[in-house]
Parts: sequence; C-alpha cells; structure tokens
Amino acid sequence: MSETTERRVRRRGGGREARAAVRTSNAASQAIWPGIPGGRYKPLSDVDMARIHDAALTILERTGVGDPIPELLDLVLPKGATLNEHGRLCFPRALTEDMLAQAASEFYVHARGSRAGKDDMHCTKEKVYYANSGTAVTTFDAETRSYRPSTLKDIYDFTRLVDRLDNIHMLGDTVLATDVPEDYQHDMSMVYSMLAASEKPACLTFRTREHIKPAIELFDMASGGEGSFLKKPSVIFGGCPIVSPLRFGRENLEILIDTARMGLVADLAVPPQAGATSPAPLAGTLAQAVAETLSCVVIANLINPGVPVVFAAWPFITDLRTGSFTGGSGEQALISAAAIQMGNFYNLPTSVGCGMTDSKIPDAQYGLEKALTFALAAHAGANRLCEFGGMMGSLMGCSFESMVVDNEAAGMISRTLRGIEVSDDTLSVDVIHDCAVDPGHFLGNPQTLQYMETEYVYPNLMDRELTDTWEKAGKQDLFERSRGVVKDILSSHYPNYFGSKLDEEIRRKFPIMLPKEAMRAA
Amino acid sequence: MSETTERRVRRRGGGREARAAVRTSNAASQAIWPGIPGGRYKPLSDVDMARIHDAALTILERTGVGDPIPELLDLVLPKGATLNEHGRLCFPRALTEDMLAQAASEFYVHARGSRAGKDDMHCTKEKVYYANSGTAVTTFDAETRSYRPSTLKDIYDFTRLVDRLDNIHMLGDTVLATDVPEDYQHDMSMVYSMLAASEKPACLTFRTREHIKPAIELFDMASGGEGSFLKKPSVIFGGCPIVSPLRFGRENLEILIDTARMGLVADLAVPPQAGATSPAPLAGTLAQAVAETLSCVVIANLINPGVPVVFAAWPFITDLRTGSFTGGSGEQALISAAAIQMGNFYNLPTSVGCGMTDSKIPDAQYGLEKALTFALAAHAGANRLCEFGGMMGSLMGCSFESMVVDNEAAGMISRTLRGIEVSDDTLSVDVIHDCAVDPGHFLGNPQTLQYMETEYVYPNLMDRELTDTWEKAGKQDLFERSRGVVKDILSSHYPNYFGSKLDEEIRRKFPIMLPKEAMRAA
Repeated sequence: MSETTERRVRRRGGGREARAAVRTSNAASQAIWPGIPGGRYKPLSDVDMARIHDAALTILERTGVGDPIPELLDLVLPKGATLNEHGRLCFPRALTEDMLAQAASEFYVHARGSRAGKDDMHCTKEKVYYANSGTAVTTFDAETRSYRPSTLKDIYDFTRLVDRLDNIHMLGDTVLATDVPEDYQHDMSMVYSMLAASEKPACLTFRTREHIKPAIELFDMASGGEGSFLKKPSVIFGGCPIVSPLRFGRENLEILIDTARMGLVADLAVPPQAGATSPAPLAGTLAQAVAETLSCVVIANLINPGVPVVFAAWPFITDLRTGSFTGGSGEQALISAAAIQMGNFYNLPTSVGCGMTDSKIPDAQYGLEKALTFALAAHAGANRLCEFGGMMGSLMGCSFESMVVDNEAAGMISRTLRGIEVSDDTLSVDVIHDCAVDPGHFLGNPQTLQYMETEYVYPNLMDRELTDTWEKAGKQDLFERSRGVVKDILSSHYPNYFGSKLDEEIRRKFPIMLPKEAMRAA
Repeated sequence: MSETTERRVRRRGGGREARAAVRTSNAASQAIWPGIPGGRYKPLSDVDMARIHDAALTILERTGVGDPIPELLDLVLPKGATLNEHGRLCFPRALTEDMLAQAASEFYVHARGSRAGKDDMHCTKEKVYYANSGTAVTTFDAETRSYRPSTLKDIYDFTRLVDRLDNIHMLGDTVLATDVPEDYQHDMSMVYSMLAASEKPACLTFRTREHIKPAIELFDMASGGEGSFLKKPSVIFGGCPIVSPLRFGRENLEILIDTARMGLVADLAVPPQAGATSPAPLAGTLAQAVAETLSCVVIANLINPGVPVVFAAWPFITDLRTGSFTGGSGEQALISAAAIQMGNFYNLPTSVGCGMTDSKIPDAQYGLEKALTFALAAHAGANRLCEFGGMMGSLMGCSFESMVVDNEAAGMISRTLRGIEVSDDTLSVDVIHDCAVDPGHFLGNPQTLQYMETEYVYPNLMDRELTDTWEKAGKQDLFERSRGVVKDILSSHYPNYFGSKLDEEIRRKFPIMLPKEAMRAA
C-alpha cells in the first residue's frame, strides 16, 4: 500500500463516546460567529490602488455623471459640485477628497425582538456578514428542475427558511413578487412578508421614494411603535442610483436623497458590466465602478455630512463571445475582491454581489463558482457578501435548496476567515512530545475534547460517510440532501413575528396581499 | 422592474461578428499560463509564523523523530544530529537553521518530446502549478455512479486524458493498479503507462528504493537515451518518509536517502492528521507538520548539501465526531494555505494536497469543497497544488469526469491568480469618457476586441446559457456535460510517446502488464 492509503486514519477509536457526548448534532457552532474579519487577501498592490483612485478622481472631475435631476443640482451645486459643457455633474478632486475624509466608516443594522442585540450587524473595517438579496423574477422548482415566476408567498417562504439558517445574517428581497404587479401593493406586501417571517436585520429595495414613508410606518410597528425604527434601524436601503456608464437613474437617486436626509443607510450596488457598460480591461471597469460609487458617497455626504453610505461597487462580467452577463468566473471573483479592497482603502463600509453562479441547478459548477467568488470576496474583507443565499442562473432565479447549501458554505468560509490562533496552548509542543515519545492517539487526549467544539465547524449536509455507506444509502448528492432540510423547515416553521393583534392592524392599514392561509401549515 | 433586473445586459449587440472571429472555441487561453504567482493571501501574521517556526525547532531539538534506521544514523550523526534518551533522532536548532540557509529554493521539472522547454515547470517563489497525484484504490464509474477497484488501464487512461487538459500541468499516479499486485510489475507498468500516455512533467511514487534504478532506465529511454534523464529530470519522487506523529517510515525514508544522493527532487507529503495523529488545535498540527517536514529537509541537505527538497507539509483534518479523515472543509482549506505560507517563509519550493472533497460524486458539495481548498492554497502561493485532478471521496477514488471539471476550475483559479494589470491603457480613462459623453456601447469599442482574448478565460464546460435554452437542451448539469468530454478524448486519443520500436524494447526488458490492445481504439 502506498503512503496515500496508509495516511488516512479512519474510524480509529479513542474517547469516541466522550466526543459524541460533547457534540450534539444541531447545536450552533462555537467555532464561528457573525462578523469575523477578513482582509488577508489583497489582490491589488498599494500602487495599484493609488492609480485606480487617481483615475476615479479624474473621471469624476472631467467626465462626471449624466442626467442629474434639478432637485439634486439644487442640493450639490451650491456646495462645490459643478456642471460641465455636456451638462454632466462633476466633482472637483478636492471636493471628493473632502467628502471621503468626513464619510462614515461604520454603521449598525439592528435585529428585532428576541434577536435584538445579539444578532445586530456592525458593518465596519473588514468584518464579514452574509446577506441575501437578488430580486429574482423566477424561483427554482426542485421537483421539476425548472424555473417558475416568483411570488409573494416565495418571499415569505424564503424569509422563514433563512430565519432558521444560522450563517445567513441579513434578510433581503431575494425574489420579486411577480403576482403583485401594482407597485405600492408589492412593496408593502414585500416588507410585511419579510418582517413577519424573521427578525434578522434586512436590506430592502423599493420601487419609488413614495414607499419609504409607509415602509417606515411598518418598520415602526415591527420595532415597538412610532419612532422606534429611526432609533435602532433594522433595515438598510438597496437600489442603484447609477446606470452605467456614469448616468443617474432617477428612482433610486431620489431614494438616495431621501435616505441621506433621514440619516438612513443606502447600499448603492453600482453595477458596471465589463465590456458592455464599462471597459473590457478589468482595471478600467474597476476605475469606473469606483468613480460611480464615489459619486454617490459624495452626494450623500453633501446632503447630510457623515451619513453612512455603503461603498457598494459591484462590477460585473460579460461573456464577450455572446455579450451576455455572466456571474460565475475567475474574473468575477477577482474584480469583486478588488472592489472590496478599494472600499477598505477608503475605510468605508462595503458590500459586493457574489456567489453569482451561471449554473441553473445546484451542481458542481454551482459549487465551484460560488465558492470561488464567496471565498475571495470574504477574504478581501467585504462587510456584506450580497446576493449570497440561493441565487442561481446568473441572478435570474432563486432556490430554496441552494439557500440551504449556501448556508453550509458560509460556515466553511467563516471558519477560514477566523484563521489560526497561535498561542502556547494551541502550539501544543508538550502534547506533541508526550504523544510522540509514549505513543498515544491524539483522539483520546484530553486536549482534543477541549478543542473539538471551538476549533471545528461540523457540517450538517456535507457527506463525510465511507464510500460503501454512501452507496448503500442511495448515492444522494448534496442537492437531494438539501431538499430534505427545506421540506423540514418549510413544513413546520410558520412564524408571524408581528403577532395576531398587530397583524390585524397592519392588514387594515396596508394592502397586504399575502393571504393568512399562506402563513400556516396546510 | 428592479435595478437588479435592469442591470443585466443580455445579448446586446455591437461587433458581435468581429468578436466571434477573434474567438475560436477550443483555442488555448491567452489570459492564463502555467506558473502564475500566488502569495496575495496570507492567513498567518509574521508573528504567528515566527512562533510556529520556533515551536517546530523546539520539537526537532527536544522530541525528535522516532525509528531512525542505522543507515540514516551513519549519515547524519557525524554531521551534528543527535540521539536523545528515547533513541529518537534530534536536530539542534543551529543545525536546522544552517540547513535551511543552504537549502535549494528552486528546481525544474522538464517536459519531454514536443513539450520540452515550453511545458517545463519551474518550482520556486510563489509560482503555482496544478499537479495530479493520489494513488487511489478505486475509480468512479460514471455510468453506475459507484466505485470499482482501480486498474493499470485506468493509469493509462487518466494520463492520456490529462495529456489533453491544458490546465493540469503535472502527471501523477492518481490511482493504484490493484490488478497488478506484485510490486516490481506494478511500479514499472505504472511508469510505462504514464510516460507512454503523456510527455508532461511527472511526480511518481515507488514502493521500494530498489525500483528507482530500473525506473531511471525507463526515464532515460523516454528522454532520449542513457544519462539523459539526470541531465533534465522529467520526474520528481513522491512518498512520505514520516509516519505522524514524528516517526520515520522505512521505505520512503530509504527513497529519500537515495534520491538525495542522486540530486533528485523528493516531494515529501508529510501528512499529520489533526486530532488523530497530531493535535486538535490547528496551530499544533501546523507546528508538528512543519517540524516533520523540516526533519526531512535537514536530512536531505546533510546527505547532499543544496539538493532540492519540496516543503510538502500536507496537514489533514479529522471529523472528530467520528475520527474519520475528512478532506473537504474550511479547516482543511485554511491549514493547507497556512502550511504553504510557512514553506514560503522558508523560501523553499512547496506543495500541498488540496481539492480533497469528501463528496463521492461531482455535485455542489464537490464544487464548494474543491474551489475553497484550491483557491486558498493557490492564493497562498503553492508551487504545486497536488491531489488536484479527479480526486473524490476523501481521496479514496478518482474520476475521469472530475478530472475534466477540475481542469476548468484550474483555469478559473489561474485567472484570479493573475490579478488585475493596472496601467494607463487598462485604466481606460479616455475610453470611459468617450463612451459616457457620446453614448456608445463598450461591446462595439475597438478596445474590447483588443482585450477580449487576453483579459478573459472562456470556459468550455460551464453553462452560461439563458435559462430557457438550458431547460430546452435537457437541463444537464456539469457532471453530465463532463461525461461528453471524457468520451470524446478517451475514444480518440491513444498516444504512445515511446513509439513502436522503443515500445518493443521496453516490453522485452521490463514486466509491462498493460496489454497493447488497451492502447488503441477497440
């Protein structure tokens, strides 16, 4: 036998019962926690970052951003922004640098109810959280392996699923309720369905500025009454004020203006697409993404100095053979990580879209593409890995099964983020000496019991059986196993965190299109 | 529609025919090449590395390595190694540091025949190559989705498959020929089957030192005649001289002694398994792995000063719930990357086992586990990512389909390694200005044509179709698509790089158990 075979220790004993007693299967992991810092992967050199920064300042000063609305001009022209000969809004270098100097470097998003305090997110430095988002128009049907239009019930179902998945820290509107076409009904029903289903912090997108005020009414009701939301915001606001290359999009620009005024956090999600709406060279797309993102940071800070804004440069990739958007590639993983590094260069809170596989199904492509984009963005130190859970098909669809799989992936990645604690205890020089000189298996050593819970994440879904056992058990793949978890949770966990009294009041006041029957077992 | 939907540019035109003309489907990628340097991910701080180094020196000085053979003692005791009271071979700190100071920091492994020169590997600094290895006892049957005993024909088949996969740079004995139980027959037949099937550089493992001399005869015949192998070695030697914790294994120690004497490169593959044959805390396993690996580096350098030795600390993980070896986890990705960082700390050529999924099938688990271990080890700057292609089931089996999938993964990871080139050209400030002010799509811009081949890797197997197209085409997953590639190559590519005259001579001289019929289409 070769050394390769010899080296695998399988089922060797020593204290197995003691270890089993320590480990109970579904306990929350003690080896990871939300907000473990990344930042140990640095794709760009210091010189590269300085040059990208310089290019972005040139773009903001010379090229500027097109289609500014009068309301915006009234706010920012008196404070030093300028209009160039093309009618584009420009930002002199000194102005951009001044605004960067005063920009907030942190914010909190609070959890509600029984999660308050312990599940709050503190977005700053290189602390990493996993966040849902996506507003996908289709949902994956695992039974038929095909995509169907997403519904309001899906929003409730995705959220109550995530309510039970420990490693996804932030709720997001992963899908669009295509069965609720009217804008106001949609946005209020979306907010209701999500806040009813989980008390985790959330990032939500709205179709128009008019929906923010009624949404805050709903947030207040969820948080304990009038004025409670603004005291401890549990929601931040997604939506991109930029249409690449370098133009404003009206609706989300208006939302940015309103949230900045109210001191609320905007997650910009600026999406230039290399080779299509930004240059084919990755450096050029990065420079444009930085310029576009900084334009929003400057605007928010001109409106309300020090208001937290997320450096949400989300550069995307095009398959230049076809011109199609593609979410899963080495280029995507690399440029997302580099964008995060630029945000950390500015000491701004960051987010990035990642885990954007092009695969339509949770297969090996799905795993390869997701893990590569997750891992590099996390190790670059993204505060929020967005589009995280369940997204498939180049962001066109969301899947319950994938959500469960991604939750497992998040646990693995968090463990790598935590790194290796080096101390006299962990270096174990004396334990090594004793076990080497007087041969004893480490499995039975008291040190192993002491460290087994704090040093290791134990997966719930990853197969670690012997090959024979796996074959005899029906040769299931991870996708099949994830279906069981989805069924378990969705058939039993029907929360309504508003409670029945508040629920009645909400349903009287707002057009909530989610029927009560969707919120209980059939 | 939300901004998420708007932002995806799909099938927008502009110069599509020109782009199609530039891109022909199976051309080798111009965006990646072998040996792109890693090193931008650093899991350990400088202080951590110094402490681990110090712990390793203490272990080597005090605990030492058990079961030294008399032949070894005769070689190293006169040069400063010592025996402690337990009869263990110890290395004073100054001796270890002296040997590290003179240890080789680089070596070449040469390709043969038409690949000579252009496919040579230069293992040094943080240059990254993908290398097969594994000696798995079973091979995955894609038809039945089960594992069967590996055969000599599998060795030939795996090697001719890899001969056609651009991103796997080094051959290795991925499987054991279980149908050739006799040691000499096995090793000579293994060498023959691999060298006949590809002229890429190789890393091979032998069962006993007696096989090295006849193997070199075969290497000479493959390289152009007597003495040619030693002039430009095309093979390095795998095999672990250490049985953790801190004991010598006789056969591979003897091979290390012989290869060191001949100036050939040994790839040690030192495999302590956290919680089983080394401490449960990752830092302790790392300290032990470094000590065990350095003991071999010191021995080789005492025997032949400056002989290249690979810093091949391959720490493994145990699932402490069961005591089983587990290859796919966050802990595994992390500790492998940290081991590589230690090798780079010593400025030694490195290798690491990675891509070691516990999954039995190319599914989402496979993808997640492989990409995470690949990506972190590559970005830590491993000269060789070993156990790379095709390995599944915690290294118990190898799969043709996975080999093909892993080749695609290697392309993605190489692209991330290459990073982002920042220059006036790539920053594209003027192109951005022109496309923003006078709206024109970047797809039609001459710059896009100029960069589309050098900036992007185009996958052959990753699905990037529209969802509808994918559904209509039969909803295939990556595993199914990979089967087609395997069938295409294995049904048509039957190389015998020895040529028929030399083949006859070899078959007269050595017990080659691979029938000629296995080397041509049925």
